[in-house]
Amino acid sequence: MTASGDPVDLDNSVAAPPLPEALEAWRAGALDAWADERARHGSGARSRLVLDEVRGALATALGDPGCLVGLPPDHVRALHAAVLGCAAPGRADGPVVLSAVEHSAVHHAAADAARSAGSTEPREVPVDGDGRVDLEALERALPGARVACVQHANAEIGTVQDLERVHALCRDAGVPLVVDAGASLGHVPVPAAWDVLVASPRAWGSVAGAAVLALREGVRWRPHEPGEAGASRRPGEHPGTVDVPAALAAAVTLQGLLAGPLGAADPRHALVDRLRGALATVPSTRLVGHPDERLPHVLTLSALYVPGEELVRRLDVRGLRVGSGSACTADTLRPSHVLAAVGALTHGNVRVGLARGTGPEAVDRLAEALPEVVAEVRRELGAEDL
Amino acid sequence: MTASGDPVDLDNSVAAPPLPEALEAWRAGALDAWADERARHGSGARSRLVLDEVRGALATALGDPGCLVGLPPDHVRALHAAVLGCAAPGRADGPVVLSAVEHSAVHHAAADAARSAGSTEPREVPVDGDGRVDLEALERALPGARVACVQHANAEIGTVQDLERVHALCRDAGVPLVVDAGASLGHVPVPAAWDVLVASPRAWGSVAGAAVLALREGVRWRPHEPGEAGASRRPGEHPGTVDVPAALAAAVTLQGLLAGPLGAADPRHALVDRLRGALATVPSTRLVGHPDERLPHVLTLSALYVPGEELVRRLDVRGLRVGSGSACTADTLRPSHVLAAVGALTHGNVRVGLARGTGPEAVDRLAEALPEVVAEVRRELGAEDL
Repeated sequence: MTASGDPVDLDNSVAAPPLPEALEAWRAGALDAWADERARHGSGARSRLVLDEVRGALATALGDPGCLVGLPPDHVRALHAAVLGCAAPGRADGPVVLSAVEHSAVHHAAADAARSAGSTEPREVPVDGDGRVDLEALERALPGARVACVQHANAEIGTVQDLERVHALCRDAGVPLVVDAGASLGHVPVPAAWDVLVASPRAWGSVAGAAVLALREGVRWRPHEPGEAGASRRPGEHPGTVDVPAALAAAVTLQGLLAGPLGAADPRHALVDRLRGALATVPSTRLVGHPDERLPHVLTLSALYVPGEELVRRLDVRGLRVGSGSACTADTLRPSHVLAAVGALTHGNVRVGLARGTGPEAVDRLAEALPEVVAEVRRELGAEDL
Repeated sequence: MTASGDPVDLDNSVAAPPLPEALEAWRAGALDAWADERARHGSGARSRLVLDEVRGALATALGDPGCLVGLPPDHVRALHAAVLGCAAPGRADGPVVLSAVEHSAVHHAAADAARSAGSTEPREVPVDGDGRVDLEALERALPGARVACVQHANAEIGTVQDLERVHALCRDAGVPLVVDAGASLGHVPVPAAWDVLVASPRAWGSVAGAAVLALREGVRWRPHEPGEAGASRRPGEHPGTVDVPAALAAAVTLQGLLAGPLGAADPRHALVDRLRGALATVPSTRLVGHPDERLPHVLTLSALYVPGEELVRRLDVRGLRVGSGSACTADTLRPSHVLAAVGALTHGNVRVGLARGTGPEAVDRLAEALPEVVAEVRRELGAEDL
């Protein structure tokens, strides 16, 4: 057995250690913008100013200074608000269209829209073996839909979608497109093809407390949570409940990240290539997700005859912290609907999400340990010669 | 005109400047418990451990180590989850009963429960001129109700309810009692009479990001937001979305505050008495709320012939930051339903909420400035002799 090294976090596709800038910006916001932004005195005005600047900075970072930026508390609630706000009663009662690899929260919200609004059941669009949306199936599913949901990239297998073509199909069908950029924003260039965009600062190295829900001008949206509709209500928010320090940290960190190397230029892209190369020869395993059209930092390996939980545990003992199962369901050891959708094994998998600053040593340690651990478990299960 | 002094915050009943312990605990949590608590490796285990300790510490602080503690993102969503979770379809379709002075979020959730579950309209229970719930009216309203909502204390006028008697009536009627302790927890002793308790750390000097929703063992509750019901789902939460650093700050600060002077022993209680005495002689004004059964730090003055906005603005110029209007509606300049319920003027009011550490100088400045400002505005409006 390889000696353990210092623990290294290799499971950062959904939550990453906070960047120092995130901690600093949060603290400044907590000291400066603690007051209710609706209050009409100096402290309220200060919160209002910070919040307005945050919204403006995020809209600009998203490439559309005219879009409406809401700051719901987390990624799940931002996705609920996006889907249910676009599917709100009052529209035609068509279905929600979604890809098979969307975040669980999108699946849940789509089912909820069908239940609560009496519309038809959601239409799920399949993906190919690399996780890319079947565009012909999407085109067939769109007519009559209320809203379509196609993620930018998948947090689990890293595959990036061809949003330009997806958006063109949605425009032709007159259906608004909700893009979940929760796994991608801050890691690859900002997509331009969306009507509603959702992002997750916690996944790019900011702190918990605020997600992002942006609406292009003209998109019809209605709050689904209790409360009054009104001018002061932004998508996914309740007035007076925005976590302003967390929102400030999100804006500051995103601005910084977008100025740095993204996508294939991100040093993590080459590290994942290196890892893919090293793991390609492990017997009876499969590297899941598109080899090129992918996030720079995400990789999933699926292995025959081994429980994912056991791989995670044994790698953890060696100081290598990886994920397994779906990145977004209630219990991460449940079979992943994403892996099922691409036709991969849903149990024996290891999910890697490299944080910024991860060096080649960590990747090499994993490349060495993973085949050993897989072989070890198979040996104990008597599955080594299968 | 009195010379302006350094700005002083006197509007802290809903959000207070963060205590140093809150900032420290948050930072420790952000560095130590950033990982998804569902992850099966060392970093996930660390988040899980912190979260479990937070839930345990809060349950103990609430006086019931066996209660189930959920950590929804904010006070408004905690109230929605409390009301809608208790009123979830599947129960008898009776109404939600609520006092007239509940937080807007309770009113909104009660209306939503009637709409979405097809139950009867909410039954509102009146309060007396001091803001205390009419117990006879409550008793008449309870039979057949799904749930009753009576706040512990009011954020705007400070009145504390007789929860022991309220709870006894609810028990007799077999109706679970939701107590909104959003304005009171951390300021007065923890109430014992509740089935579901909601609290707002931001209002006691912790940071934004996590509220508290506690359920006694045996209370029937069902999530109202999209998602799967299941063992891993706590009230008001989605798995993996709890803001653990904010929750840690909430638990640490509450423990500290409950060890210090509370209620009438809190030095702010005497300061509010001093302020009440000084303001009692301002012509054509009324001190709203119960003079004794009240929060230690909250006071509202209602004045004839003067717009509240104008009072806030002119006091702000003098460095005195007070609130006006309802503390919990979308636009704080809307007429307050709380003031209407106690039969007070709903427009010309000033709301004071003293932060911990506020000294007598600040209170004396306000006691001097407020009568001057009221007289000034009346003079300009030609209402001085009315």
